[in-house]
Amino acid sequence: MDPSSDAAANEQEALKPSLTDESTPYEEALLKQISDIENRIKQIELGMASPTAIPPGIRAKMHALRKLQLQIVDKEAKFHRMAHEMEVAFQDEFNECHEAISRIVNGLEVPELPAESDECTDDAADQPKGVPEFWLTVLKSSFLDVLVQETDEPALRALTDVRSVLKNEPEPGFLLEFHFASNDFFTNEVLTKEYFLRCAPDPEAPSKFNGFEIYRCTGCTIDWKPGQNLNVQTHTESEGGPARVEPVNSFFNFFEPEKHTNADFGEAYNVALLECDFHHGYYIKETVIPRAVFLFLGENVSLNENWSNCCCDRCLHPDSLEDVDPSTTPENQDATSSHATNLAQTKEVQQAEF
Amino acid sequence: MDPSSDAAANEQEALKPSLTDESTPYEEALLKQISDIENRIKQIELGMASPTAIPPGIRAKMHALRKLQLQIVDKEAKFHRMAHEMEVAFQDEFNECHEAISRIVNGLEVPELPAESDECTDDAADQPKGVPEFWLTVLKSSFLDVLVQETDEPALRALTDVRSVLKNEPEPGFLLEFHFASNDFFTNEVLTKEYFLRCAPDPEAPSKFNGFEIYRCTGCTIDWKPGQNLNVQTHTESEGGPARVEPVNSFFNFFEPEKHTNADFGEAYNVALLECDFHHGYYIKETVIPRAVFLFLGENVSLNENWSNCCCDRCLHPDSLEDVDPSTTPENQDATSSHATNLAQTKEVQQAEF
Repeated sequence: MDPSSDAAANEQEALKPSLTDESTPYEEALLKQISDIENRIKQIELGMASPTAIPPGIRAKMHALRKLQLQIVDKEAKFHRMAHEMEVAFQDEFNECHEAISRIVNGLEVPELPAESDECTDDAADQPKGVPEFWLTVLKSSFLDVLVQETDEPALRALTDVRSVLKNEPEPGFLLEFHFASNDFFTNEVLTKEYFLRCAPDPEAPSKFNGFEIYRCTGCTIDWKPGQNLNVQTHTESEGGPARVEPVNSFFNFFEPEKHTNADFGEAYNVALLECDFHHGYYIKETVIPRAVFLFLGENVSLNENWSNCCCDRCLHPDSLEDVDPSTTPENQDATSSHATNLAQTKEVQQAEF
Repeated sequence: MDPSSDAAANEQEALKPSLTDESTPYEEALLKQISDIENRIKQIELGMASPTAIPPGIRAKMHALRKLQLQIVDKEAKFHRMAHEMEVAFQDEFNECHEAISRIVNGLEVPELPAESDECTDDAADQPKGVPEFWLTVLKSSFLDVLVQETDEPALRALTDVRSVLKNEPEPGFLLEFHFASNDFFTNEVLTKEYFLRCAPDPEAPSKFNGFEIYRCTGCTIDWKPGQNLNVQTHTESEGGPARVEPVNSFFNFFEPEKHTNADFGEAYNVALLECDFHHGYYIKETVIPRAVFLFLGENVSLNENWSNCCCDRCLHPDSLEDVDPSTTPENQDATSSHATNLAQTKEVQQAEF
């Protein structure tokens, strides 16, 4: 039996009413919901019902129907996990194309025009090596344009590839890899950002289940060369006085998600920033990478309205973080939103009909 | 080799530049796009380029990259078709639950409360048969509430089940079945609406590919009992004068999609009406059926923002069609939108992360 069926079987098990004193949190939540339904039925019996509400005297039927409804949700979760496994297995097919794109972009392979073209073949000697600034152009042609500052561009010119690795073990998620050529700003060859997914109904609100959702991400440590940290700006107050280091907006903030949350702001603000980051990560996986050439060529990529609706302060007021005090940088950047971002509502491309 | 791989292989074949005089429309579209790219490169060479536009002298690379991009899109289409096949195969698992729900709702099975419940078991003799008005309540608790007129309610009380059948042959799609008990309005036992899906990049705009989309639907003929047609209203102008039959809004309009398009209105209006119908059909498949019990119990179902955004005249002004002249009713209702509705943008539940 595969792991996903096991998980589904375990959840089915958890649906059974507790017969012992040791209730799991899931069982307790279910019992609470049964109690909520009973309270609602009592309200109806007291004449507080709306015209279309549940008729009285059908409590046993409601219990049985709700149990079947929860089984449907569990089966959906099982189906989503199967589809995720299928996508993990399928990614090699896409990677063949991404590898070929990378070879051309980085000048490891120089293609020739098709023989039947009436144009003269370009003289390879006249050409620049590969496609200069391919990934910088892709980023600036995408929705992520707002994140790229002018001061980031010299570093992003060294961006040679962007890849995503879809995972199922040890837990579902995807790793974004940004590969860089040697540059003046940092010594890392690859900067990474990892997103973690979950696909299980919330026992407190099973009716809101909507497939996989991102609930956590981790960045990486950027090994900046001296004085080249694009994520901060250093102000010297006065001659000989203490230098003041302030965080500034930069595309490279993306790799330090802890900076997206700040104790000086309210929880709602921080949640919005992190959800925005989840959108950005998912957008890179679903659009920037699989539509890179279309973006580079300026061909309109199908855009889900949700992308234009990102209304967090970071997107609306990109300068709003500039006066924030710097926070210390932990070894591994890690951020968890108290509100996960459901992929069903941010899905844009590469999406099947189910 | 399965049919979907065949289709993908055929499309790969179509990507190869034409070596004969007999170009297919797909090849012609590709050649036109190559010509468009060449024109754009010429513009760049004339100094009309934006700072991040394509550098000159890399025409062969652009050809090769775009070919790889089209391969990625074709592989995505193949993946979507595989996922659709998986969903078709998986639907039996869901149907077990829907069958069990139907038996309870229609009184064919009378469940008992769990033994450990501290409530007395309901006396079956005191209960109504099944769950009266279950499906009417579900519809009125859903987004489709706006479609249900007061005059529809007596007929919808006879609604005993709503099911969807997902298909792959002869073409991908889904059939919605509305099962009715004997009633005063029509003699049909089942009213149906079928939606047809396609999953192939548009050769004219491959960058807009976004998975499966609904492009056509067919309704059914309702065998109304005399004088009971809920889709029309009969006015007698004067004593002995000719009766005037006007179409009116009714939930049962849903089964006559040709009435959603009307020659008296502009194309944009008719396209909006039909796209709205596609949303409704997809919503029934993805939410009304798989979340019926949650809707009945009034538990909040996760709603994609797109649903509240339906802004076609039919939804905003439900009475706007009342003055429209009646059109004749063909034997089989059939409607095709000039703009298909992409499922990726209307997806709400039962959605995998890929």
